[in-house]
Amino acid sequence: MLYEEMNKSELLAQYEDLKKQYNDIKELKLSLNMSRGVPCAEQLEISRSMLDIINSDVECVTIDGQDCRNYGIMDGIPSCKKLMADVMGVTPDMVMVGGNSSLNMMFDTIACFMTASPSEGCAPWFEVKNRKFLCPVPGYDRHFGITEYFGFEMITVPMTENGPDMDVVEELIKDESVKGIWCVPKYSNPQGITYSDETVKRFASLKPAAKDFKIMWDNAYVIHDLTDEEVPLLNIFEECKKTGNLDLPIEFCSTSKITFPGSGVAAMAAFDNNMKIIKNKYKYQTIGFDKINMLRHVRFFGDLDGMKAHMKKHKDILKPRFDLVVNKIKENLTPYGIISYEEPKGGYFVSVDVMEGTAKKVVALCKEAGVILTGAGATYPYMNDPKNSNIRIAPTAPSVEDLSKAMDVFCVCAKLSAVEKLLEV
Amino acid sequence: MLYEEMNKSELLAQYEDLKKQYNDIKELKLSLNMSRGVPCAEQLEISRSMLDIINSDVECVTIDGQDCRNYGIMDGIPSCKKLMADVMGVTPDMVMVGGNSSLNMMFDTIACFMTASPSEGCAPWFEVKNRKFLCPVPGYDRHFGITEYFGFEMITVPMTENGPDMDVVEELIKDESVKGIWCVPKYSNPQGITYSDETVKRFASLKPAAKDFKIMWDNAYVIHDLTDEEVPLLNIFEECKKTGNLDLPIEFCSTSKITFPGSGVAAMAAFDNNMKIIKNKYKYQTIGFDKINMLRHVRFFGDLDGMKAHMKKHKDILKPRFDLVVNKIKENLTPYGIISYEEPKGGYFVSVDVMEGTAKKVVALCKEAGVILTGAGATYPYMNDPKNSNIRIAPTAPSVEDLSKAMDVFCVCAKLSAVEKLLEV
Repeated sequence: MLYEEMNKSELLAQYEDLKKQYNDIKELKLSLNMSRGVPCAEQLEISRSMLDIINSDVECVTIDGQDCRNYGIMDGIPSCKKLMADVMGVTPDMVMVGGNSSLNMMFDTIACFMTASPSEGCAPWFEVKNRKFLCPVPGYDRHFGITEYFGFEMITVPMTENGPDMDVVEELIKDESVKGIWCVPKYSNPQGITYSDETVKRFASLKPAAKDFKIMWDNAYVIHDLTDEEVPLLNIFEECKKTGNLDLPIEFCSTSKITFPGSGVAAMAAFDNNMKIIKNKYKYQTIGFDKINMLRHVRFFGDLDGMKAHMKKHKDILKPRFDLVVNKIKENLTPYGIISYEEPKGGYFVSVDVMEGTAKKVVALCKEAGVILTGAGATYPYMNDPKNSNIRIAPTAPSVEDLSKAMDVFCVCAKLSAVEKLLEV
Repeated sequence: MLYEEMNKSELLAQYEDLKKQYNDIKELKLSLNMSRGVPCAEQLEISRSMLDIINSDVECVTIDGQDCRNYGIMDGIPSCKKLMADVMGVTPDMVMVGGNSSLNMMFDTIACFMTASPSEGCAPWFEVKNRKFLCPVPGYDRHFGITEYFGFEMITVPMTENGPDMDVVEELIKDESVKGIWCVPKYSNPQGITYSDETVKRFASLKPAAKDFKIMWDNAYVIHDLTDEEVPLLNIFEECKKTGNLDLPIEFCSTSKITFPGSGVAAMAAFDNNMKIIKNKYKYQTIGFDKINMLRHVRFFGDLDGMKAHMKKHKDILKPRFDLVVNKIKENLTPYGIISYEEPKGGYFVSVDVMEGTAKKVVALCKEAGVILTGAGATYPYMNDPKNSNIRIAPTAPSVEDLSKAMDVFCVCAKLSAVEKLLEV
């Protein structure tokens, strides 16, 4: 029976029961964490043998004979540019391989445009006093953090099942001070939504008032499937070629959730104009990133097929966790009509909407019971979820056993908060 | 006999002889490079076994049990902070360990102050339209590159045998738009000069008009001795504690020339106020740098003593090269009175001043004969050496045999350029 259809005495009965359950849970003194998209220990183990790839018996040379141990090759070794190009579906000349973090490359890209002209004839964004950035919501807190750090006013765009609401985007970009948009086009963070063909085509067809409008295309989950179905995503660069909008997209990806989060390889791709501005910064910033680690990755995978085969091992580890989360929700929350969610086909999260106005309470109750969730509101700029309902569940890090316990706690807290809320009215 | 004391016919005889020597050299079709401070193949080999330190049989955990393969620990693993703190003579809490490049950390630091307030109450440097930076000359071209990229007017400060001319520095910092100075305090690039105690004390006592004046203390050659004598350098932080100038110095170092230039570990150190501003940037920029590589370094060296023992191996490889360069100069150029230089006790370069007005010619002649030198003027901002006399010789990369050939070419070119110059008058 839906909570909303219960009368007061039914709700009170629920409340007493849930309160008791909650107090029992607190007695367990749990310490569980579902807050961040962190691979679990098992996932790290499947890349363990990568640590043997480079050792003192092998030569660390590129295919064109350069010593990876020494200085140089600012934009990455050729074989790694090729591998990351294949991951992104672009040509190697469009790729710059960086250090261990695509977040760092995104930060550096925005930082670059803050002080250098982001497009011919345009002022550095630092000079644009009312600079704005579009943020599809719910979205990734670390994206919002970067644009907040650099003083952008962040404007939210609602997500639909096909990606950001493009009607809204097309309206907002009529403002010349709107300089870009954050996108996670495949298995979006946190909803796991893959942008539809129409969405990608509309992105490629945008006519922003700002000549220096950039689409930050964070393809963090490009091959991070949770099912045997590879959900297709149109290639933004190919679409932009058709529309002539070559300066719009800048794509990012990394192996952080393929090999090791702390020691992966990050890369970015863009057409000439953007890459020229970005490389003109990098050439002052560094002599080159860690080429031994690039070589380690290339030799470990061989090619994109090798990488995809590796991803199946991740899927096998993660699938039961995601199934568990979804099943717990279906079983414990759906019957009461207090939750909505998308079942993700890839990525690292399950995004749920609990009863409006209760997300913060749910997170606080969980915390008090020893279960850490991503802060309520974190999926919105300025931590401001106007409906106070979205919660990002990150099921990857805990063991299945711990996850099961944590989800039980979550379900009790979601119900308790909902009942409390209804009783207040 | 000094060239300057020769009469015209003596000079002409020299000219004919040198011209012939030069043409003979060109016939050899050499291809040698003395342009960059790049470790040679032998040097890379002494760190080869570091590649075995981390493999699939070892656990990648920090001393406090955190998995180095996963996300987190933004400012570096504790053991690596300790190691780099010992290298710099500071406490670990003052240290941030970064990626593979201290140049990158320096760039990031200047970039940070471009858009964030560099000191309480001060405007970001982007807003300081006539921003200036002090550049001791001769100096490091990549330092100058960073401040040029960010639009600073670079003001040169002459180097003395004790470091930058502090009378000049003390005068220039009366201008509030002067925001900082580049320093390589030990075995300076390119002269190999170590700042005297008085110089360091005067740095620590500076009273710049700019409240946000920063000393960029690039301790790139902190343990890079070329003799058995460790040339002492006063600790800038200790001196600044005495004067209360805590916000002046920011120190940088790396293992690029200790282990692998492409895959070392970089670090920076500063007192609280600077570190707070810088870490407030890094926390948006990255979740953490490559901790496996930090662990690899810590386990390879054990401690600072282990690192210093390793540096002796570098010294043994490099000393003959530096001796060769100095001996060739003494033998072939000193007798003619056309060269001045410092014999370095550490670092990576021999800085020479050829006859005024001839450096560009010398470099061009060398290039024509197949020997690449650092571009004349590179040791000055905007590539502008007003005397056109300084050349940075980088003897580390070539084999001793190649270096010997290259130095013979250099000596002939230096003499030929000098004689031509004298004949013009």
